[in-house]
Amino acid sequence: MGRWEPDARGRLAAAAMELYVERGFDQTTVAQIAERAGLTERTFFRHYADKREVLFAGTGEFQSIFLDAIAAAPAGASPMDAVAAALTAAGQMFAGLRDGARVRQGVIDAHPELRERELIKMATLATSIAEALRARGVVEPAASLAAEAGVAVFRVAFERWLVEDAEPSLARVLDDMLAELRTVTAA
Amino acid sequence: MGRWEPDARGRLAAAAMELYVERGFDQTTVAQIAERAGLTERTFFRHYADKREVLFAGTGEFQSIFLDAIAAAPAGASPMDAVAAALTAAGQMFAGLRDGARVRQGVIDAHPELRERELIKMATLATSIAEALRARGVVEPAASLAAEAGVAVFRVAFERWLVEDAEPSLARVLDDMLAELRTVTAA
Repeated sequence: MGRWEPDARGRLAAAAMELYVERGFDQTTVAQIAERAGLTERTFFRHYADKREVLFAGTGEFQSIFLDAIAAAPAGASPMDAVAAALTAAGQMFAGLRDGARVRQGVIDAHPELRERELIKMATLATSIAEALRARGVVEPAASLAAEAGVAVFRVAFERWLVEDAEPSLARVLDDMLAELRTVTAA
Repeated sequence: MGRWEPDARGRLAAAAMELYVERGFDQTTVAQIAERAGLTERTFFRHYADKREVLFAGTGEFQSIFLDAIAAAPAGASPMDAVAAALTAAGQMFAGLRDGARVRQGVIDAHPELRERELIKMATLATSIAEALRARGVVEPAASLAAEAGVAVFRVAFERWLVEDAEPSLARVLDDMLAELRTVTAA
């Protein structure tokens, strides 16, 4: 109790993912996660509010990467160019993380409540991107449409990246999907 | 019991909406809805699974309008043209229904669980549209991207339509928003 646990957070996350895959999310308890990690339940709750939180702990950082990139885009960048810069930054964040992302996605896909949470996460991202674009002076409806288009590209690209045989970088797949969206929507 | 109740379904829906606005969704019971409609709880449950269902009873018809329009688009139509035809059909479905749509949206916006249900409805719509496009021979990722773009346009247009001072037709706002999306995404 109270003693320093080296990388307790990472150990708990790894133990949780193992158990979600082995037993299913519903059948896994916080006690089992703590035991697998060689830690106490109390330590678990110092790091995560509940067992669902382990899967969504990166949401804040994920969203910040988009918003920071939009804020940092050159003043003359179009709304869609600012969104493209955000997609590239988000793609780079996932470099080398595909195996973990696949495992996480498998757990989420198997569970309606987790799929809903993921939908809410992406809807919140779209709302936040629109807000970041408005902060750059982009007016409506361009801000909301560019934000929704960007999240649509991310969603389609991410799903594709997870199942590709070769392992392209997510940044590359995002770039391809954005080009494809531009083609599809061209009048 | 068992006797014919003229438009019981419509009376129950109207009573439910009144009560959701007056008391809030959480504070309204099925017993109160039935009483307000001058019907029994048993009659309520012959028409709706629960009080949430009253707000989402049109989901199947809503989705069918999109899917039927996509299936009926000319063979040579591009994916985005097929989606545009679906948006127009959906817009026409809402002709004259803005007041009711505003009341419903107010109830949904006030309640996180209902907002989540609405998100799921729109995500399901995007998945179904992509499927309908693939059935026309559209390949991936064009099918998913056109579907996501169409749902994004619907979402932004619908929100705008509800708050406009003048009352433009939803079909018109959808058309404008699709044009705007094309402009925003143009390279």
